[in-house]
Amino acid sequence: MQVGELGEFGLIRELTSRLPQTSAVELGPGDDAAVVAAPDGRVVATTDVLLEGSHFRRDWSTAYDVGRKAAAQNLADVAAMGAVPTALLLGLVVPAELPVTWALELMDGLRDECQVAGAAVVGGDVVRGESITVSITALGDLQGRRPVTRSGARPGDKVAVTGWLGWSAAGFTVLSRGFRSPRAFVEAHRRPEPPYHAGPAAAVLGATSMIDVSDGLVADLGHVAEASGVHIDLRAADFDVPAQMADIGQAVGVDPLQWVLSGGEDHALVATFPADAHLPSRWRVVGEVTRPASLSGTGRVTVDGAPWDRVGGWDHFGAQA
Amino acid sequence: MQVGELGEFGLIRELTSRLPQTSAVELGPGDDAAVVAAPDGRVVATTDVLLEGSHFRRDWSTAYDVGRKAAAQNLADVAAMGAVPTALLLGLVVPAELPVTWALELMDGLRDECQVAGAAVVGGDVVRGESITVSITALGDLQGRRPVTRSGARPGDKVAVTGWLGWSAAGFTVLSRGFRSPRAFVEAHRRPEPPYHAGPAAAVLGATSMIDVSDGLVADLGHVAEASGVHIDLRAADFDVPAQMADIGQAVGVDPLQWVLSGGEDHALVATFPADAHLPSRWRVVGEVTRPASLSGTGRVTVDGAPWDRVGGWDHFGAQA
Repeated sequence: MQVGELGEFGLIRELTSRLPQTSAVELGPGDDAAVVAAPDGRVVATTDVLLEGSHFRRDWSTAYDVGRKAAAQNLADVAAMGAVPTALLLGLVVPAELPVTWALELMDGLRDECQVAGAAVVGGDVVRGESITVSITALGDLQGRRPVTRSGARPGDKVAVTGWLGWSAAGFTVLSRGFRSPRAFVEAHRRPEPPYHAGPAAAVLGATSMIDVSDGLVADLGHVAEASGVHIDLRAADFDVPAQMADIGQAVGVDPLQWVLSGGEDHALVATFPADAHLPSRWRVVGEVTRPASLSGTGRVTVDGAPWDRVGGWDHFGAQA
Repeated sequence: MQVGELGEFGLIRELTSRLPQTSAVELGPGDDAAVVAAPDGRVVATTDVLLEGSHFRRDWSTAYDVGRKAAAQNLADVAAMGAVPTALLLGLVVPAELPVTWALELMDGLRDECQVAGAAVVGGDVVRGESITVSITALGDLQGRRPVTRSGARPGDKVAVTGWLGWSAAGFTVLSRGFRSPRAFVEAHRRPEPPYHAGPAAAVLGATSMIDVSDGLVADLGHVAEASGVHIDLRAADFDVPAQMADIGQAVGVDPLQWVLSGGEDHALVATFPADAHLPSRWRVVGEVTRPASLSGTGRVTVDGAPWDRVGGWDHFGAQA
């Protein structure tokens, strides 16, 4: 059956019937608005839009994977503030001829990724349009802590990452060239696994700044450096380039460090910590914060002291212009 | 200049530079997520998606009006829960050739409508796509009260409305036939004026259920009747059909009561109250809640005891199918 045959209210009924709620949900889907607990008297909120063609392809990813990924990138933004994700809202544009099963599997993906992060899908809107658009808003709770912003990095801080880096980009390269393996990288592209719990944990460890790696590590640290008015130097040797990634790099003629430093969409977390912070092993120290060499916005992030001028971050306009 | 020339980050910078914040905003746009006060330990959240062509036309409405309307319909959903709107997030899809001024004026409209409701635009996302899509999430605070849902209407309650009814639909009819006047109705279609303050006030007055009229009064009361397991009978003579609306109706051959009972998008509020509730004059009593004649989901809302079988509510799929 196609969504055009089922109608707006029918589709919404089908979609919401699949949603378990959590104890944080006072009122779930089906009313004018949802009501979600915000125990510390504040709520963290973020929105992202994914378009078919730009952010996902139906021939590369299942609807379920698109749902997992759409939820993941928003829930990771919440975690990057040091908050615990609580809820997610979906704005969905679907063509009339889209199979109903595609929409339902998308919702299953959103639901399951929310479950990984401890959140619930609490509401949304579905309208008919030309192409699939998935707009997500995620909410979270800071549990009484200050939000960890982009602007708190200080000279002398160490830079540390947790989660996967470059796996999604390597998978994207493989898929772009018509291959479906190695499976681990293709899977990483289809379904990122952000380290949600590490976000609030970083706040407790004293993180001075944090960001979710969505545009590429160097590009995203550029936002931190600019917001904090500092310079950041990374040490290439301190990154972990798995042997299998190096092998693919050799096969396709790409320096794997480029995936690690410029690849987005794994939704790793990168944070700065005071030099004396004691970090558990899940955090890998990969660089340090220094005083800005100049006040210019460019060149704020270097690798082994030199500019990292290979493929930069992902600008959704620039990349397609 | 077109948005494709300015780029994603440039456009976001321009858009966010226009946004004043309120005391409820602990952290506004520019980080991974915003942080907004949720004083009573819960947050009300709702999402709506507007598409060019389906929900607005650039030749009928300015970008500013689209912004006002997009914000209004979401903020009205918050008010319909009995909550005070606090914040709004924007997910925006724009074609590369869209003039930057269109996006900026949209943001001005969102900002100004937020100001009317006491809220602030706190974050968003901008991506490039084929057609303009405006996805809004609005947040609100219940100030310690229980949310006023759709499911609390009880037999014996009176049904009352506040705000405008049928004005937007009359304006839509006028515009559809190529006219630009009467101005009051065309303006009502371009820029609804939801009675935000009446939402929390209704909660204080003891409203047992409430909904924002977006699909048409009869259709939206149908949701209340179904969720509450009741029947609702409206009295046609109790509605206010302004003389000017009656005149347009005569000119175009439409019973104006059809606009009043079936027209959406004015975002009036309709609520049910206990029979002995004392309502201020801004609320007009237009019907009553009775026991369900049958358990069927259809025919739950009647007008003077008879089914209201003219043009029904607005189903975004059905209307275009």
